[in-house]
Amino acid sequence: MNLITFLEFCTLTEFLTKRSSALSKSLFNFTLKMSNLKKMYSLNPIGHAETPFSEKFGIPRQASLLDNIDSAIILKAEVHSLDSLDGLSPGDLLWVISYFHLSKSHGSKVKAPRLGGNKKVGVFATRSPSRPNPIGLSLVRIKAIEFEKKKCRILTTGLDLVNRTPILDIKPYLAYSDFGKSQSPQWVQENDFEKPKKIEYAPLFLSKLDGLVKLELEQLLNLLDVVFLEDPRPAYQRESERTYFSSFYRWNIAWKIKENIVYILDITELK
Amino acid sequence: MNLITFLEFCTLTEFLTKRSSALSKSLFNFTLKMSNLKKMYSLNPIGHAETPFSEKFGIPRQASLLDNIDSAIILKAEVHSLDSLDGLSPGDLLWVISYFHLSKSHGSKVKAPRLGGNKKVGVFATRSPSRPNPIGLSLVRIKAIEFEKKKCRILTTGLDLVNRTPILDIKPYLAYSDFGKSQSPQWVQENDFEKPKKIEYAPLFLSKLDGLVKLELEQLLNLLDVVFLEDPRPAYQRESERTYFSSFYRWNIAWKIKENIVYILDITELK
Repeated sequence: MNLITFLEFCTLTEFLTKRSSALSKSLFNFTLKMSNLKKMYSLNPIGHAETPFSEKFGIPRQASLLDNIDSAIILKAEVHSLDSLDGLSPGDLLWVISYFHLSKSHGSKVKAPRLGGNKKVGVFATRSPSRPNPIGLSLVRIKAIEFEKKKCRILTTGLDLVNRTPILDIKPYLAYSDFGKSQSPQWVQENDFEKPKKIEYAPLFLSKLDGLVKLELEQLLNLLDVVFLEDPRPAYQRESERTYFSSFYRWNIAWKIKENIVYILDITELK
Repeated sequence: MNLITFLEFCTLTEFLTKRSSALSKSLFNFTLKMSNLKKMYSLNPIGHAETPFSEKFGIPRQASLLDNIDSAIILKAEVHSLDSLDGLSPGDLLWVISYFHLSKSHGSKVKAPRLGGNKKVGVFATRSPSRPNPIGLSLVRIKAIEFEKKKCRILTTGLDLVNRTPILDIKPYLAYSDFGKSQSPQWVQENDFEKPKKIEYAPLFLSKLDGLVKLELEQLLNLLDVVFLEDPRPAYQRESERTYFSSFYRWNIAWKIKENIVYILDITELK
């Protein structure tokens, strides 16, 4: 019995009982009972992220590198009142708890970029977005809180999420409890990789920058610096010199890395 | 139409259609569709917390104070394999993302204990468990990882959760990204309150300790120190000298605070 048959069935029962709204309420209660049996918890996002990253590929794995890159958290109308943000100011740090909506599957181990991409490590020892519950945790800095009519935007730096990622919660950073008295796990400390040393812009790329206003250009070059000097290639392709394509803001960028130099080859506008 | 009428209705439709399992499947699909419309996300806990706290009252608001108090995270069979924890070791710090299952309601502002209990502050500027999505964030230290047959326990210190709180995710603390370069929000820095200076044990309490073995006694006294020197009274009752009752481990404790001295009055075993 598929959904359509089911809807026909509902019409039949409506005909029989003339009480479709009561039926729908009961369905809802029944559902709640079912989800209790499975002990699942439903969360309704409080808003979403607005970032330059339209895809996972290219987001620096170290959010602290995004200190100069503007992003925003857009709060939903239901929770957007300035009241709920009372006590937060520009400069404060904020924990952003998000839902990795593009994450698909997970195993108990994941390939860690730091381990060369072929060696695996336990999923709970990583921040990989592929995990049993696809929850993200990012530390960002508040730049401004804008409140206009029906819209509330928290302007931030450091948001390492794909554009439009749902946000589940935000909390203040509390120095007295969050200041870890330890290092990262041993496997993280021991495995870092060599990063590209500089960026070169191909003539084709440079010739196409005329259409960009100064502010856009600065913003883009700034982001390319941050992203590409971190080497966004999958670790198991780190030796590859193939050409990749990545989207940032409203542009698609062609690039490659060869002998620790990043070559920015071409730029086209996204449709 | 209440649930029972609905179940009778299901029996009727089962009789009519002889396809109850198909019906239940359709109900489930219908439900999924409904939750998509509301853009809600369902999360299935990976395990639960095992702590000395059977109620919210009495849990120190500064998790770092719980450094000497043992707790545990019990992972579910589905995710418990040692594999998923590979790369984590005793001494490492772990972010624990939990679901405040006892949290009921929320407004856009909450009473902050730090503000004397009557002044309010925006819910997103606090770590209050009463929030739009009742998600918790705790930084704990791994003491040991125990793996026995079908059970996996991560022994920790610093877990500031009610016993049996569902755990949604755990992630490693990463020094390079989590080490905040800031203070707490201004309102947190400016508002601290005077704490009790010492604990006195009433003769009645002391006379009842004979039944406890040395280890249990040490564990309990250790916890009472941590909890009561923080003054767990609601801020708006901070002047009150009334007697309170709090449960820790398998005991119920009667106590009061008078002129900055905590009096531990009585102890009884929980049923």
